[in-house]
Amino acid sequence: MSSPLLVVGSVAFDTLHNPSGTHSRILGGSATYASLAASHFTKVRLVGVVGKDYPDSAIQMFRQHDIDLEGLEVDKSGDTFHWEGRYSDDLNSRTTLATDLNVFATFSPKIPAAFKSSPFVMLGNIDPVLQLEVLKQVEKPKLVVADTMNFWIGGKRDDLIKTLARVDVLVLNDEEARELSGKSALVTAARALFAMGPRVIVIKKGEHGAVLFEGSEIFSAPAYPTGEVIDPTGAGDTFAGGFIGYIASKGETSHATLRRAVVYGSALASYSVEGIGVDRVLTLTRDDIEKRYNIFRTLTSFHE
Amino acid sequence: MSSPLLVVGSVAFDTLHNPSGTHSRILGGSATYASLAASHFTKVRLVGVVGKDYPDSAIQMFRQHDIDLEGLEVDKSGDTFHWEGRYSDDLNSRTTLATDLNVFATFSPKIPAAFKSSPFVMLGNIDPVLQLEVLKQVEKPKLVVADTMNFWIGGKRDDLIKTLARVDVLVLNDEEARELSGKSALVTAARALFAMGPRVIVIKKGEHGAVLFEGSEIFSAPAYPTGEVIDPTGAGDTFAGGFIGYIASKGETSHATLRRAVVYGSALASYSVEGIGVDRVLTLTRDDIEKRYNIFRTLTSFHE
Repeated sequence: MSSPLLVVGSVAFDTLHNPSGTHSRILGGSATYASLAASHFTKVRLVGVVGKDYPDSAIQMFRQHDIDLEGLEVDKSGDTFHWEGRYSDDLNSRTTLATDLNVFATFSPKIPAAFKSSPFVMLGNIDPVLQLEVLKQVEKPKLVVADTMNFWIGGKRDDLIKTLARVDVLVLNDEEARELSGKSALVTAARALFAMGPRVIVIKKGEHGAVLFEGSEIFSAPAYPTGEVIDPTGAGDTFAGGFIGYIASKGETSHATLRRAVVYGSALASYSVEGIGVDRVLTLTRDDIEKRYNIFRTLTSFHE
Repeated sequence: MSSPLLVVGSVAFDTLHNPSGTHSRILGGSATYASLAASHFTKVRLVGVVGKDYPDSAIQMFRQHDIDLEGLEVDKSGDTFHWEGRYSDDLNSRTTLATDLNVFATFSPKIPAAFKSSPFVMLGNIDPVLQLEVLKQVEKPKLVVADTMNFWIGGKRDDLIKTLARVDVLVLNDEEARELSGKSALVTAARALFAMGPRVIVIKKGEHGAVLFEGSEIFSAPAYPTGEVIDPTGAGDTFAGGFIGYIASKGETSHATLRRAVVYGSALASYSVEGIGVDRVLTLTRDDIEKRYNIFRTLTSFHE
């Protein structure tokens, strides 16, 4: 039974310099990517903040995807969070040119009363202090998924560990898993991360796919063998949004559902990198998603 | 129907310095690893050269694995090929300390008459000039698999390309695939490598598994999620030997067989790294191999 999903994270403008050119002030932020990805599967409730410069067209875009914006605060005292970065020619690395937090600097997530009982919660990649504030406001969700990154692992480790104690599923990349756990083999790293609280660990490996750990179960999914990446921005958030969106659409958290959720997350992420920003994910149909899910089946099948 | 497999490559002594200690003059070389791996599946015919110092115990070891040594030349004029290397603490990189080619320096593979009609041929990771000499001597094999490495891609590119024109399956790692093809995305790299001759490309990605390309078909296999690697020496040769050994045991080269062969190769390689040198592969049973094959099924399965 499809259940509503609460997504909390950043809503931002991104300015990207990559081989295809400069893309100024396009829609970005962890909550933007995650909620659009999840909206293909279930009803999404977004909590975040934007500034006085945030355009009505973007608001309409979210509404068209049936994303509930009751929790989207519009802070007229300043502008929307803006990030600017330059990608290397092979898109494998990027340099931050500007991070203008603007209204995000004083953001404190307030979960609307109607959202507090959301059975599924996605904590986008933001300050773990804010992630914990969300968890203090929600009422016994069935599943809490948190995304994080090296910036918080290095800079706010103690806060992150407090948050992780209350998280069911931690999503992070392989480098981050190694940094947070201090272990080099991913199996060993996952075990160390279990001890911090989450009962499920999902390690994203970019072009090498993703691995899910739950108890003694391990599921390894390849990446979609794409010929060309246009823009990797938000691929991780899109993966996480597709992952939890699919789980929420099922309304249950069996191991079999989690495995398929990794594949749906991978499918969404594989589409995301084919366009600039959220462009490709915006135009996807459910049929496109099922097609790619089936490609993953073909890609991995070997036993008669 | 199980068919005999011809394996040509180096037979060597390796001296390894790794976190578990120094392992002096243990059995090594591409043909040693590949033929031992393949011997779990089919009858192997080995072609290589050893020197006057090669011990009878090693000869007996090959015989115990039913490996036909008619093509193993014993050159009394010198010592066996010896390689010495030091691994980094995390085993992810290694430095060559010594390469004493000894009798291998003048090696020219001579395929015994009884071996010339071998239906399956594995060209281990040696000089492409020697690989081509082998192909000039064999009679219409069903499938020729060649392994190579960056040393030949950089140093003997023209010879390698001549050899590849006569090879069915090229096995190499991701970095080498990029170097040889000049393409960064693996899908694009595989297409460029097809144009050099091989109709099947297998790209090994170490801890990220392996990808098989045949025509428009792509098969992605994960690596076995091992908690600890003891010694990665020969893992690539073991993979290749397990891969072609399984195919030879089936006696046919359908796409379904190639996919399963990648999994068997991965299973063999995953065992190989659990011990020093060939130790673990020597003691394996067919039952151990099937167990790990089944773990790969569990590891990758997601659709009901």
